[in-house]
Amino acid sequence: MPHDTLTLAQTLIARRSITPDDDGCQEILIERLEKLGFNIERMRFGEVDNLWARRGTTAPILCFAGHTDVVPAGPLTQWDSEPFTPVIRDNRLYGRGAADMKTSLAAFITAIEAFVTAHQEHSGSIALLITSDEEGVAVAGTTKVVETLKSRGELIDYCIVGEPTCTNQLGDTIKNGRRGSLSGDLTIKGVQGHIAYPHLAKNPIHLAAPVIAVLAQTEWDQGNEYFPPTTWHISNIKGGTGASNVIPGEINLLFNFRFSTASTVESLQTRMHEILDQYGLDYDLEWTLSGKPFLTPRAELANAVCDAIKQVTKIEAQLSTSGGTSDGRFIADICSQVIEFGPCNATIHKLNENIEVKDIERLSEIYQLTLKNLLANSA
Amino acid sequence: MPHDTLTLAQTLIARRSITPDDDGCQEILIERLEKLGFNIERMRFGEVDNLWARRGTTAPILCFAGHTDVVPAGPLTQWDSEPFTPVIRDNRLYGRGAADMKTSLAAFITAIEAFVTAHQEHSGSIALLITSDEEGVAVAGTTKVVETLKSRGELIDYCIVGEPTCTNQLGDTIKNGRRGSLSGDLTIKGVQGHIAYPHLAKNPIHLAAPVIAVLAQTEWDQGNEYFPPTTWHISNIKGGTGASNVIPGEINLLFNFRFSTASTVESLQTRMHEILDQYGLDYDLEWTLSGKPFLTPRAELANAVCDAIKQVTKIEAQLSTSGGTSDGRFIADICSQVIEFGPCNATIHKLNENIEVKDIERLSEIYQLTLKNLLANSA
Repeated sequence: MPHDTLTLAQTLIARRSITPDDDGCQEILIERLEKLGFNIERMRFGEVDNLWARRGTTAPILCFAGHTDVVPAGPLTQWDSEPFTPVIRDNRLYGRGAADMKTSLAAFITAIEAFVTAHQEHSGSIALLITSDEEGVAVAGTTKVVETLKSRGELIDYCIVGEPTCTNQLGDTIKNGRRGSLSGDLTIKGVQGHIAYPHLAKNPIHLAAPVIAVLAQTEWDQGNEYFPPTTWHISNIKGGTGASNVIPGEINLLFNFRFSTASTVESLQTRMHEILDQYGLDYDLEWTLSGKPFLTPRAELANAVCDAIKQVTKIEAQLSTSGGTSDGRFIADICSQVIEFGPCNATIHKLNENIEVKDIERLSEIYQLTLKNLLANSA
Repeated sequence: MPHDTLTLAQTLIARRSITPDDDGCQEILIERLEKLGFNIERMRFGEVDNLWARRGTTAPILCFAGHTDVVPAGPLTQWDSEPFTPVIRDNRLYGRGAADMKTSLAAFITAIEAFVTAHQEHSGSIALLITSDEEGVAVAGTTKVVETLKSRGELIDYCIVGEPTCTNQLGDTIKNGRRGSLSGDLTIKGVQGHIAYPHLAKNPIHLAAPVIAVLAQTEWDQGNEYFPPTTWHISNIKGGTGASNVIPGEINLLFNFRFSTASTVESLQTRMHEILDQYGLDYDLEWTLSGKPFLTPRAELANAVCDAIKQVTKIEAQLSTSGGTSDGRFIADICSQVIEFGPCNATIHKLNENIEVKDIERLSEIYQLTLKNLLANSA
């Protein structure tokens, strides 16, 4: 079926599935999966459509995970063609979701179709975990499906998340982990007063400065084999009444840790409070954990994916844990080997998002070879 | 003429002279000054009425300075009576301007009337410098009149500014100087970036923190006999895009020096730049000088005022340089002895501004005795 992955990718891009709207994408996938004998579970949580599909009842389970939702197109006049009308120009397929990640979804399906056709009696199980809430708040999507699977003891052995991970060419990078993200909303309190009478006030900006200086210099950990050291940064700082003759009563900071598996949420929180307390500050601090870090060591899944990449592209893929968070953080809760692999990410979330046409079938081939490496019945 | 000062104060309070509107107040003063033989010069700059009035042509000149404008009343429903309808309750005169500073203007006039009546042939000159732009931006008021006088070589020997200087009772405090006010608008530059890739960004909040910590600890000077040490405070700090995953490209700070005569504008600016440069910061800094400090040592004028206060109130006045800026900073440019003295300042700029009725005539008596101390012809 030459170009079948391209055709399916185009069909999906034509759906205006802006988070959290699936806009019928999952039904398109379901129609094809049912023909292959998949057991289909539609899991709608709130306004979010999710899909759990599985072929086979035994272990190991190899799951493909992804999302049908896309980020908004942005200013239409700045696109060279309609974002929801897939167009090929100069050997590239243009459209919102072309790279993140409707082509990966199409490649999942055609890879599974080819593999199942050749290996009706494969070992283990093939699964898909698809959500329409990855680009948004991500509270009614993958995390809920994972909760459901966990509650009934249905764990995953291997999971490939189809996020766009490559930087320069298809196959150059797979992600075998992600740093965690821990945020803080910190208010440091002083005493408001007239700037001509500073002895009657307590300037919270002056109180905060030495503490920020220390925090910015702190080594939180040294990272490890797979992760760079944990970083801490302030994204926003705000203090002052607007008047130039008033010392404000408080100052507010938003900060964020990107942390490795060398630290824990608790260890970072404890050290932060220790430093704030050392300076005798009067403060409020609210924590938000956006995602714990996860790490998949080089084992069966990473080896299977790297081997498939090598066969199709002749490239040795690099393992990386850099970048932002993804749904991999949720799946890691019920799966010890989570790998992210998908197309080049240079244009994601941007105007004129696109993917090279030649990479579309190659991506399907890599997923298909991975299936073969892990589930082909040698019998 | 018992209670004449009270009557004139009430007449002035009834005028809605909110900055920069004089609302006819100066004409009321002029009518009375002309009867005493004053030479009247109306100096209107832009939308601001100013008055320079002088009786006599010889030195020394004793000048009374003040303003007819008042700050807005604020929420009317929170006043116990109409702010522009003077009312006496419980031995206090209520109304916007009762303390700051229409009673002082009334007391200037009645003091001069009484003195001139008794001393037609006084020595030197009596003058009034009145503006309607003291509470606002103060660019078309006293500063312009001073420029005019300076340009024609008309210098002042002694100046009494009628600002409310007393804290607990009439006569407890005179101001013999004010600190200067020097402001800075400082932008510290970094490089914007995603918080997940901090090595590609340069966080200006982190760069600023150690410098702020050092500046907050810096001893700018030790003050002197009349002034407390110079203070430096940040009033406003702002950095961040609002997004919690973006390191901002720059941070903005507004700061203010309140400085004594132990420092100069240049010495403070030089040290500030030295500290910023020490840290290799990339920054923009715009300076605004709101007022140089001025100081009047204990000499003829201070002695004359203190003696008059002692005679009327039995109190030894304290000399002080505390508090915000006043028009005294401009007058000091053409006058080596500037003293501020007026009623209690507890209610100025507040709801239900008021003055004790008993202080009204006493204030006039103090000004009258000061005139006598300095200009009575002993012949």
